[in-house]
Amino acid sequence: MWQLFQYPLCPFSRKVRFALAEKGVAHELVREYPWDKRDEFTDLNPAGQTPVLVATSGALTLIDSNAICEYFEETVERTPLLGAGPAERAETRRLVAWFDTKFFAEAGVLLLQERMFKRLVARSSPDATLLRAAGRAVEHHLDYIEYLLDHRRWLGGSTFGLADIAAAAHLSVADYLNGVDWTGHAGAKQWYSAIKSRPTFRPLLADRMEGLAPPQHYDKLDF
Amino acid sequence: MWQLFQYPLCPFSRKVRFALAEKGVAHELVREYPWDKRDEFTDLNPAGQTPVLVATSGALTLIDSNAICEYFEETVERTPLLGAGPAERAETRRLVAWFDTKFFAEAGVLLLQERMFKRLVARSSPDATLLRAAGRAVEHHLDYIEYLLDHRRWLGGSTFGLADIAAAAHLSVADYLNGVDWTGHAGAKQWYSAIKSRPTFRPLLADRMEGLAPPQHYDKLDF
Repeated sequence: MWQLFQYPLCPFSRKVRFALAEKGVAHELVREYPWDKRDEFTDLNPAGQTPVLVATSGALTLIDSNAICEYFEETVERTPLLGAGPAERAETRRLVAWFDTKFFAEAGVLLLQERMFKRLVARSSPDATLLRAAGRAVEHHLDYIEYLLDHRRWLGGSTFGLADIAAAAHLSVADYLNGVDWTGHAGAKQWYSAIKSRPTFRPLLADRMEGLAPPQHYDKLDF
Repeated sequence: MWQLFQYPLCPFSRKVRFALAEKGVAHELVREYPWDKRDEFTDLNPAGQTPVLVATSGALTLIDSNAICEYFEETVERTPLLGAGPAERAETRRLVAWFDTKFFAEAGVLLLQERMFKRLVARSSPDATLLRAAGRAVEHHLDYIEYLLDHRRWLGGSTFGLADIAAAAHLSVADYLNGVDWTGHAGAKQWYSAIKSRPTFRPLLADRMEGLAPPQHYDKLDF
């Protein structure tokens, strides 16, 4: 059994939760707000970041969302998430990095800071300029998702995998924070609707950050 | 044969160059400054970032430093760089992410921006406050390297691997930009001295960014 230290709006934890569910790896959620800088958590992960996955036996601690996903890709045969061959896996990893670094830097971190952290922790007002920049970035990323889907069934290739999981994890946090305007993005909507209907993704959509409600459309299959 | 699009002070390209050399993968260097936003390069990598590795046959383009390193770990048996088992590989990947995200965000990107980009491209003065923050961060990372080396021969475990490669790639760029004060860090110095003496790392130390000289000690084995 595993314990996952995470909080509902951490996109990297969402990626891990979605991947573990697809792999059928049972795990218990432990709520951890990295900004609390809890000593016991810093002892667990000196980087102070979620997600951290701990074997309840105490035998193993896995840190960093990609290290965790790669670990289960290596140890659990069910539902390969990276792709069949080295070239396919390279393409999946490229896209995971795309969402983890590019999407997160251009949109995710701004939305989290302006709409979550400032509201729940700093108790200050969001910066409209930064929110507009995040909105424009999300728009470009939706375009890129649609460009990929013009050539492929799923983001990484012909089968569902970690590229879809990473994209959905980051986009769902942005959507929760009302940062995604789906208008005019029928292709991306169709892909995300298919993601939303997966039983492995439903628990993520049902999860709530206290004091911060998502927009009406957030957990609807038809949005 | 492969072509690697990179520039001398890109830490992610250095990681790939060092790993390819350890793996014995022949490659030709192509100078690419991402800030030039060359159309042909954006066509190659829509993220607009180095490194990009292209098979000269045209059959394959590999993008993202970790996707590249994992590709060669999967396809070239010689010199395994990630570790023997899944837990060892998870620890290596954790540390690679540590340097790629934490070291880079806290120190690397500041030094590159203030000491390279402002000097060579923007032609403006560096911000002393940011440089001091970078210096303090490097100090903490040297402490962490020494903490790891108190328990292990190399950063990731008992054998040399991608954790050492990633750390050396990022640190060497910071050192080139005169951002590393080695005083009082005998343990980290000893480890870095062993890295510097590897024939696979020498070409990186010999490489120069035109218009920007490294400090005297930069390529010395005894520093």
